[in-house]
Amino acid sequence: YGGGYQAQYGAPQLAANDPMWGYFTAIAGQDGEVDAEELQRCLTQSGFTGSYQPFSLDTCRIMIAMLDRDHTGKMGFNEFKDLFVALNGWKQNFMMVDQDRSGNIDPNEMSRAINAMGYHISPQTLTVIIKRYSKNGRIFFDDYVASCVKLRALSDHFRRRDTMQQGTVAFQYDDFIQCTMAV
Amino acid sequence: YGGGYQAQYGAPQLAANDPMWGYFTAIAGQDGEVDAEELQRCLTQSGFTGSYQPFSLDTCRIMIAMLDRDHTGKMGFNEFKDLFVALNGWKQNFMMVDQDRSGNIDPNEMSRAINAMGYHISPQTLTVIIKRYSKNGRIFFDDYVASCVKLRALSDHFRRRDTMQQGTVAFQYDDFIQCTMAV
Ligand SMILES: [Ca+2]
Ligand SMILES: [Ca+2]
Ligand SMILES: [Ca+2]
Repeated sequence: YGGGYQAQYGAPQLAANDPMWGYFTAIAGQDGEVDAEELQRCLTQSGFTGSYQPFSLDTCRIMIAMLDRDHTGKMGFNEFKDLFVALNGWKQNFMMVDQDRSGNIDPNEMSRAINAMGYHISPQTLTVIIKRYSKNGRIFFDDYVASCVKLRALSDHFRRRDTMQQGTVAFQYDDFIQCTMAV
Repeated sequence: YGGGYQAQYGAPQLAANDPMWGYFTAIAGQDGEVDAEELQRCLTQSGFTGSYQPFSLDTCRIMIAMLDRDHTGKMGFNEFKDLFVALNGWKQNFMMVDQDRSGNIDPNEMSRAINAMGYHISPQTLTVIIKRYSKNGRIFFDDYVASCVKLRALSDHFRRRDTMQQGTVAFQYDDFIQCTMAV
């Protein structure tokens, strides 16, 4: 009786019945896991980016780094599905803001998009994020996704350590570097 | 009498006597500051990357983010000089390790390069960094520099907050996001 809990060793059998399983195995190839190059090819060929610019290899590496808890540099099936759910949410969010479908948004639209995701960050931090991810004052879809991936991964790292939900975490240097250099 | 202290408003006059000043103004253009595109062009045209691949725009943006304390997204003259000093150190370090001049190094060589910079990080953190910055098991010059820039910027952020030098810093969520999303 599973009851919301799924044993790791049970995953492959259940996965075989999943409509995405065939798709995943085709992309993953021989080693059964998806690396950055495979992810980039898959997101471009599947038309995920549509009329937007394809994702850079670097954005794909950050996406994998976010989910890669065993540090193999690759994604298994469940990680792959998690990423697709997240990507679809970010894409919808971006398209809602990018009303003229130009593929890029301005700083105000970027602020709205980040706020819409429910992160509580100060205007100054928002400014820092926008500066980092804009080109000539515009934020392109690829960079927007890279910023979403990073913001989520960093917030997850923080929340996991903030066990008392105090909004403050004491980081040791090595731990700080490990979780911030990964993404 | 200056005595090691240089007033901000005094900088342009003194800078004019600096051999790098003419070079800087040529690169900076009308606005007198260097942005990511200008930095990329300058590092490629000056032959800094030499036989290595030119820096990606993303690496250039991280370099500027590291030094951009006033959040303009651009570099002034003193920041530009600081960056050149750092870049030369990293390049020497890389070339020492990349003995066959292939333009890329393996994980063991990367470990040696990072250790040579004097950072005290655990083997596990080293592994995370190498996974994040390698392509097919090799670390290219561009990615190596991106990792050096990030490691330095993050270590600076940490050190500035670790006033008692305890090796532990209590980060508030917003502050954590601000200093980690910037690079
Ligand atoms: Ca694979
Ligand atoms: Ca993995
Ligand atoms: Ca300029």
